[in-house]
Amino acid sequence: MANSEQNSEPKYLDGDILIKNGRIITIDSQNRIIENGAVLLKSDIISKIGTTSEMADLNACTVIDAKGGIVMPGLVNTHTHLPMSLFRGFADDISLITWLNDYMFKLEARYIHPETVRCGTLLSCAEMLLSGTTTCCDGYFHEESVAEAVYTSGIRAVLGQGVIDFPAPGVVNPLLNVETATNYARKFKNRYSRITSSIFCHSPYTCSKETLISSKQAAVDAGVLFQIHVAETRSERDHIRQQHLKTVVEYLDSLGILDSSTLMVHAIWVTDADVEIIRQRGSSISHNPESNMKLASGIAPVLDFIRAGIPTGLGTDGSASNNNLDLFIEMDSAAKLHKVHRYDVGVLDVLSVLRMATIEGARAIGLGKITGSLEIGKKADIIILDTHKPHLVPMYNPVSHLVYSATGADVRDVLIDGEIVVKDRKILTLDLDSILVKATEIATHLVI
Amino acid sequence: MANSEQNSEPKYLDGDILIKNGRIITIDSQNRIIENGAVLLKSDIISKIGTTSEMADLNACTVIDAKGGIVMPGLVNTHTHLPMSLFRGFADDISLITWLNDYMFKLEARYIHPETVRCGTLLSCAEMLLSGTTTCCDGYFHEESVAEAVYTSGIRAVLGQGVIDFPAPGVVNPLLNVETATNYARKFKNRYSRITSSIFCHSPYTCSKETLISSKQAAVDAGVLFQIHVAETRSERDHIRQQHLKTVVEYLDSLGILDSSTLMVHAIWVTDADVEIIRQRGSSISHNPESNMKLASGIAPVLDFIRAGIPTGLGTDGSASNNNLDLFIEMDSAAKLHKVHRYDVGVLDVLSVLRMATIEGARAIGLGKITGSLEIGKKADIIILDTHKPHLVPMYNPVSHLVYSATGADVRDVLIDGEIVVKDRKILTLDLDSILVKATEIATHLVI
Repeated sequence: MANSEQNSEPKYLDGDILIKNGRIITIDSQNRIIENGAVLLKSDIISKIGTTSEMADLNACTVIDAKGGIVMPGLVNTHTHLPMSLFRGFADDISLITWLNDYMFKLEARYIHPETVRCGTLLSCAEMLLSGTTTCCDGYFHEESVAEAVYTSGIRAVLGQGVIDFPAPGVVNPLLNVETATNYARKFKNRYSRITSSIFCHSPYTCSKETLISSKQAAVDAGVLFQIHVAETRSERDHIRQQHLKTVVEYLDSLGILDSSTLMVHAIWVTDADVEIIRQRGSSISHNPESNMKLASGIAPVLDFIRAGIPTGLGTDGSASNNNLDLFIEMDSAAKLHKVHRYDVGVLDVLSVLRMATIEGARAIGLGKITGSLEIGKKADIIILDTHKPHLVPMYNPVSHLVYSATGADVRDVLIDGEIVVKDRKILTLDLDSILVKATEIATHLVI
Repeated sequence: MANSEQNSEPKYLDGDILIKNGRIITIDSQNRIIENGAVLLKSDIISKIGTTSEMADLNACTVIDAKGGIVMPGLVNTHTHLPMSLFRGFADDISLITWLNDYMFKLEARYIHPETVRCGTLLSCAEMLLSGTTTCCDGYFHEESVAEAVYTSGIRAVLGQGVIDFPAPGVVNPLLNVETATNYARKFKNRYSRITSSIFCHSPYTCSKETLISSKQAAVDAGVLFQIHVAETRSERDHIRQQHLKTVVEYLDSLGILDSSTLMVHAIWVTDADVEIIRQRGSSISHNPESNMKLASGIAPVLDFIRAGIPTGLGTDGSASNNNLDLFIEMDSAAKLHKVHRYDVGVLDVLSVLRMATIEGARAIGLGKITGSLEIGKKADIIILDTHKPHLVPMYNPVSHLVYSATGADVRDVLIDGEIVVKDRKILTLDLDSILVKATEIATHLVI
């Protein structure tokens, strides 16, 4: 119910948007849940949180009635390759190395250019918006085009230009990879208000020692997040051990790669000593359980990361290895996988998992102070779920339902930076039909 | 597009319903996929399958335009406890034994009676219909009330009255459990056209040797399916080994329990020799990966079952231990879990998993000749998915998308027995709002 004509004089308004009649899941330091709650926004900022009755007298330009649904922070996807949505389902059920070398790298060399990057990114943004993700952390190539598309969508993001030691889309000469990434990181650091740049170094098995060091140095110089795939497979672990007589983490640490601005993605084949190194360096983790399961990579020691206090977020990975970007389903998989893996029903309780998909993910990518929870002064990145559905009724514990029962399709409205970007499951920032048509058209030409 | 007035004289009609413009996933013996296909129904039976252009001249009372979406057999859920939807999320992240003894059995003793059974069953049926399940196999108490509610919903079902060696809902004297189940099985075997009765014996650790033997004998006498939880936990395996010096499967086999009308649910802690016993006896398996993960029970040797040719279907288990009834997400979990468990990306390929959720599930519960695939002469249990969505575009391989990308929320229409029961995501057989209100009202009274 939007009564946008309620007050015409802005000076009498208490806020721009009032969300009322919701079950507010704050994910604040006490994990408060406010029954029949309300949230007031002033411009892009959360200015008040309380019960609907406490806030009954407040005036706002727009009133959004949550109708008893859940109001919560938008989800944070800490690892994606947005344009790869164009390759979703093209090649399944093959090993990571075959998948990369015989399919993805070849497809990328032939078909990835600014126009396809733009289309694939818009497609992923549409999917993320419709499944409640308001912030993502991406690593790919032609990242300027990724940034332009993400900007159009309205999503908050950390976007990293890729570095790899062989010809990559847009960078035919691998010697120029670090330079290209450096230029991008500087140019796009503050170009768009919701987007921060980053450098995404592919991995220790596709980048030389020199590339690893220089790309990390470039990230440090630009003051941006450094993302890297780490210890994803046993073969990577064995390769590094053979070459350097070290674990993958020890090797990266010996190069000075690990600090509090490094996001380590996957981190499956790590030892207890590695966990201690990561903790000491202050690095973060992106845990991608569904991709790790699908590619048979292994199961990361997430409980150890969390116990050590290492910021650990959830990621879907690219949708070519998942195959969707729905973080609700990713939460479900994370919660269940570690239980059966450890034969312990008590591990990764629902609240821990929900925190991974929100505030801990935001912390992991350096945005913990501005998003990932509903708190006064934070950016208004908020989603509203319609819970009047058979799989969400009755509701004894909303956090349980968010992790175990809900999917992204239950998201009704999405606000980012105080802007309504999805309303009643319609995306307001993108022309969804034209994106679907364009993506389908691109796909008809793909051959390996 | 329903042009129901097209022909008023039934004698000129080629069929009652024509579904056209769909991508038909048949799940027949060749797993044929028909692009731009059509399916003609005569009453409750599939009478023709082909391309839309081949069937352009046919007349039907109702024409359903699939608009390029997927047309496929409705999913088959081989293991549920339908009324337990009322307890979803009431008690999570605790061990199976604690969960049963300290929560579920107590809740059931206090709150389960015909009225709550009816409400919980309707709630589950609504959820199953909206997520594309057209057939389910249930085991619970007050099964007459379950049957009445399932009948109202229009779902096809095998419904088993529970047998357990302590007071259960509706059967205060456990000595009467087998008799109650026997009477139910006979009375409801053919009462409703889409419903078959069954006997559901809870488990070898909650039923004595005598109860196991007599309940199986009752099922044989009535000519109905015998369902039983088998080897779900290590403690069950250890308990049986200690008591009987046998594996759980050997123990049940020694009692004559295993034959081609026995559905073994879970079957996690089984040996290679057990698999051979199951194969020889012709028994079936219901694999419930998400429940097994959430309750940290273990991972069933599903690949061995399939390799041995044992009919193996998918089940969600009750929604109190999952926590939803969405078989699309269950397919995703099954496909991924076994890959990471075996460190092999090639196991449980998408087609095998889709067959588990359809034809193999139907075979496992004794309905393989009438449902689980789209073939001429079979019952018209059909679902249509809307694939014009960002997570399903582009589509290189529809089977991949069904397993890895889709959720139940993508189901647009559902037909069971040739009857349209869901149209544009509205359930035509049930009053969803009143069910949600009633379930919420029941939940407000629950205390442990």
